This record gives sequence, structure tokens and C-alpha cells, in this order.
Amino acid sequence: MRQAGRSLPEYRALRATGTINDAIGNPDLATEITLQPVRRHGVDAAILFSDIMTPVHAIGFGVDIVAGVGPVAERPFASATDLERLRPLEPETDTPYVIETVRRLVAELDVPLIGFAGAPFTVASYLVEGQPSRTYGRTKALMFTDEQLWHALADRLADLAIASLTSQVAAGAAAVQLFDSWAGALDPAQYRRFAQPHSRKVLTAARALGVPTIHFGIGTAELLGDFADAGADVVGVDWRTPLDRARTRVPARCALQGNLDPAIVLAGWDATRHAAADVLASNAGHPGHVFNLGHGVLPETDPGVLTELVGWVHDQDPHAATNGATS
Amino acid sequence: MRQAGRSLPEYRALRATGTINDAIGNPDLATEITLQPVRRHGVDAAILFSDIMTPVHAIGFGVDIVAGVGPVAERPFASATDLERLRPLEPETDTPYVIETVRRLVAELDVPLIGFAGAPFTVASYLVEGQPSRTYGRTKALMFTDEQLWHALADRLADLAIASLTSQVAAGAAAVQLFDSWAGALDPAQYRRFAQPHSRKVLTAARALGVPTIHFGIGTAELLGDFADAGADVVGVDWRTPLDRARTRVPARCALQGNLDPAIVLAGWDATRHAAADVLASNAGHPGHVFNLGHGVLPETDPGVLTELVGWVHDQDPHAATNGATS
Repeated sequence: MRQAGRSLPEYRALRATGTINDAIGNPDLATEITLQPVRRHGVDAAILFSDIMTPVHAIGFGVDIVAGVGPVAERPFASATDLERLRPLEPETDTPYVIETVRRLVAELDVPLIGFAGAPFTVASYLVEGQPSRTYGRTKALMFTDEQLWHALADRLADLAIASLTSQVAAGAAAVQLFDSWAGALDPAQYRRFAQPHSRKVLTAARALGVPTIHFGIGTAELLGDFADAGADVVGVDWRTPLDRARTRVPARCALQGNLDPAIVLAGWDATRHAAADVLASNAGHPGHVFNLGHGVLPETDPGVLTELVGWVHDQDPHAATNGATS
Repeated sequence: MRQAGRSLPEYRALRATGTINDAIGNPDLATEITLQPVRRHGVDAAILFSDIMTPVHAIGFGVDIVAGVGPVAERPFASATDLERLRPLEPETDTPYVIETVRRLVAELDVPLIGFAGAPFTVASYLVEGQPSRTYGRTKALMFTDEQLWHALADRLADLAIASLTSQVAAGAAAVQLFDSWAGALDPAQYRRFAQPHSRKVLTAARALGVPTIHFGIGTAELLGDFADAGADVVGVDWRTPLDRARTRVPARCALQGNLDPAIVLAGWDATRHAAADVLASNAGHPGHVFNLGHGVLPETDPGVLTELVGWVHDQDPHAATNGATS
């Protein structure tokens, strides 16, 4: 349950002052924020409290997470000279707080910690657009008018993700999740040409570290097979695609993560339970299933319903894994 | 090409002052705005310049189209008493300007005019949320906590759409397009339970008028078969789903409309031509294809590229139909 913290009063109390980057940069806060939903809901894994823009922020590209807006780049990526603003990440000196947070969490947690990175396409889209976009018009214009520059940009972002994930695994993360949140804006041919090679580089490097890889995006109904093919062990599925359909689009080696509609939770426990039962029915007892929401927890969610949900899923199948956290 | 007008300087000149409702309410303006892209691009059909909120606005629900935001309801729909704010539409007295615009267009156009209405789910989502939403949390909460009220709301909106489309066809519209723009927020089970019965009522009534029906939404990869089953003769496909995949999800009687990525057009003519060729290749010569963008024209689009596109598509297949307009 990504972004589960947003619905918790104890999270809002911690985050009352300061930016999200302040919280990520403070291992005391980031550790506590990661632990809060695990403690409250009893999920079977934690996901590091972090942000997909943390590495580019750390190397000084000039991107901030503006509350109520999202990542904003003062000077968007526009030409080859902007590549110079994307030097390699040195995790020990650029993001020591991430490493320290992972170390503390691994020491404290009874469940595995999932590391966290943004996929090159999604991170690049923020750098190119300069702000959240509904159309990705600038990003696609760059892809199609200067394909070489696009690939140079995405390759640097792949290296940043690899460096960050490698440092997280070295510090004890037991799995990694690569977020290509907005890849669903691409059609399959665009995805395979412009995004997949770079995600594959990251996922291949992560697998070489010996940890399982989870790959997630929303609106990816047409891309699930391509996500698997990029090197995902677990493919995240949003709520739009029933798991039985998703299963036909990924190879048998892949597990699926998902996919309860996060908006259903707003309708209360009764509706949530029925919808959760539909998710399990659609999975039909397949062992390769990590129960989760199909997208991040909505801020207005009643956390009590989430706690009931986790308990209910565990009751249905004592072997079921639920994956929950704040990032 | 829905919303093609937004990219035209002659449209922006006409719309320089006044709201979109002012323009819709003025047959001189609405007629000219509908004609502009037909005249400029040489497309094979026109679509009425209108808005999916026009009927609810006309009966005084209290909803405005705020520039840069979208439909905003001062008092959102929240309870059974709000049903009283949704009286039946009397097109001759409530929206005489729509009828007059259709009449003038039919007299002036050399190509068919497509009528226009919003589907109950999408219109309801604006009334319930009170503004554009990314999650449809309130809408889904209403569906699942008071299903009877949801259906009462959606049924009234179906009747409004039927009344409006009937008046447009009586005035000469040769086909109708029903926009369920945001149905892609629903999973297939939610769609079939909460949206499809009401869209089916509208589409069935439209077909009874003897005109073909086009049904469009975005993010509907998982819903294409259900859109067809609701009574669409033509199913709109956004750019995410290749036409050959879409074809496997709808019955043979259905034509497809789409599905060039509107963001590609921003990359210029060369990229647009290649992507348009991919659309035609994916269609593989199937006769049931209306070439179009997979979503509305982006405001920053170079209209010259659209003109080239229409000419190019016509050159590829002299029988191809392109469907373009402003609404």
C-alpha cells in the first residue's frame, strides 16, 4: 500500500512542518514514517519512504516536490547541455540519509524492506515537462524529434536509479520496486522504443544484486507483458485490469501485485471487503499474487478500513502476502 | 478531431471574450466554430461545438465551465434532494441555441454533422465531485454506499442526453457521439454495474432515431467490448490500444474510431506521418475504421500539421473517412 502514510494522523503530525525532501533527508523521520503503516496495519513488507525524484534532487538538477502539485523543475531539461546537470550519483555522499534510513529500518523491521526508485521514463517526463503533465507532449516531442538526446537522458537516469537501488540493497533492502508511474501514457510501440530499454537496464542490474524486482505503473493494461519483459519478477497491476486478464499477458514466471481500487476504500469497509473478495476471486488461488491496492492510498482514506482489509486478507489465506508502506 | 478548434488562431480570436457557455449559447459563434476546422482541414464530418455539461447547465443545476479548470459545480450532487435540481430537458425552450446551431450547420455543411452528448457516468462524476477529479473517490463512494441514488441520478442524466440528442437529430444531425470520457476510471465490473445500463439507454434511444452511434472514452482498454455492448456502432479507441488489439475486443459489426496519439502531433509532420502510418498498418485495411486522433487536439498543436495529416490520410485511401471538428 504505497503512500499509506498520507492517510495516517501520525504521519500528518510528523510531516506538519517541512517539505517531503526534508523528511526524506532526515533518517529519524524517514524511518518512523516507513514504520508507521507497518505497525498500524500489520502488512507483510515495508516500502522505503522516499520519492522517485530523490536522486536527481540530490545531484542538484534543481527539482522540488511542491505540496499539492508534485515535482517541479525550475529549469526543465531541454537540450544536450542539460545533460551536464545530471552527473552520476555517489550514494555515500549524495544520499547518505537514504542509506542510513535503510540500515535503521532493516534493523528494526520484522518484515522485508522494499527499496525504491523511479524508472527513467517517468523521471525524465518530470524533468522535461518541468511539472506534472496530463499529455506528456513535451516529452514525446523530445523522443520523436531528438531520439539520441532522449536516450542519453534516459540512460543517465537509469544509471542514477541503479546507483540508488544498489546502495539500498547493500544497506539491506530485500527487494526493489521500480516505479514507472506514468508509462501508461505511452502506446506499446512507444514504450518498447523509448522506455523499456532503460527500465530493462535498471531491472537487470537490480536482479544481478540477487533481489526480486517489482515493476509498477498505472494505466498499463496494454503494457503488462512489456513490463514483465523488461525484467520484472513481479508486475504491478492497477485496478482497471482484472488479475485473470493480467495473468494472460505476463509469462508464468511473473507474480502479480495488486489490485484493489483505492477509491473503493473511501466507500467504507463493506464495499472494500466485497471488492477485495473480487480481487481474490480473480486471482483464483494463484500462488504468484501479492495483495495490494492498484495505486497509492488516497489521502482521505480511513486508515481503520485499511487495517481491517489487511486482517481480512490474512484470514482468507494465511500464506497471502500484503505489501504495505508509506512511500 | 475533437477540440480541433483549440489549436486554431481563428477560434481563439472568436473566443477571445466570453465563456464557453456564451459561445455555445450563440448560434452565430457556435456555427462558425464548428465550421472552422472543417473548412481548414477538409475532414469528412463535422462535430457540433458543444459541451457535455450543456444540458445540466441549461436546466439550472449550477455548473460552469471554468477556463483552465473544467466543469465546476458550486453545490455538488450529494443527496436525494439534489435530484430535484435535475428536471427534464425541454430542448425547444432550454437549449434552442443548440437546435438553431445544428440547423444552420446542416444547411451550410457539405459533410455530415455529428451530434454530441455526455454519457451519464462522466456527467455524474462532475456533478458529484464538483470539479475535475483524478480519483473519482466521491463518485465511487456514492455508487457503493447508495446504489439506488446513483442509479436515480444516472437515469436522469440519461434522459437529459436522450432529449438533447433527439433534438439534434431532429434538426439534422446525421450521427451522434456519446462521450464517456472518464469511464476508464472504472474497472469492468464497476462499468457494467454502474455506467453501462445508463449508456445503453442513451445509445438505444439514439439508434431508434435511425442514426449511427459513436461511443468514446479514454483509458478504456479493458472496456472496449463493454462499450460496444452498450449499443455503439462505432467504438472510439484512445492511442494506448493498437487497433488490431481493439478489433479483437469488439464484435465484427463495430467500426473503430481513432487512434493517433494527439501528443505525437506536437513533434511535427515527420513524426506524425510515421505514427499515422502505424495506425493504418494496425488497422490493416479493415473497412470499419474512422481515422481520428485518440483524444482531443492539444491546444498547442500546429494546425498546419493537422491539415497535412488529413490530406495524407485521404491520399493513402481515397475511401478513408476522417472525422474532425471542434467540440
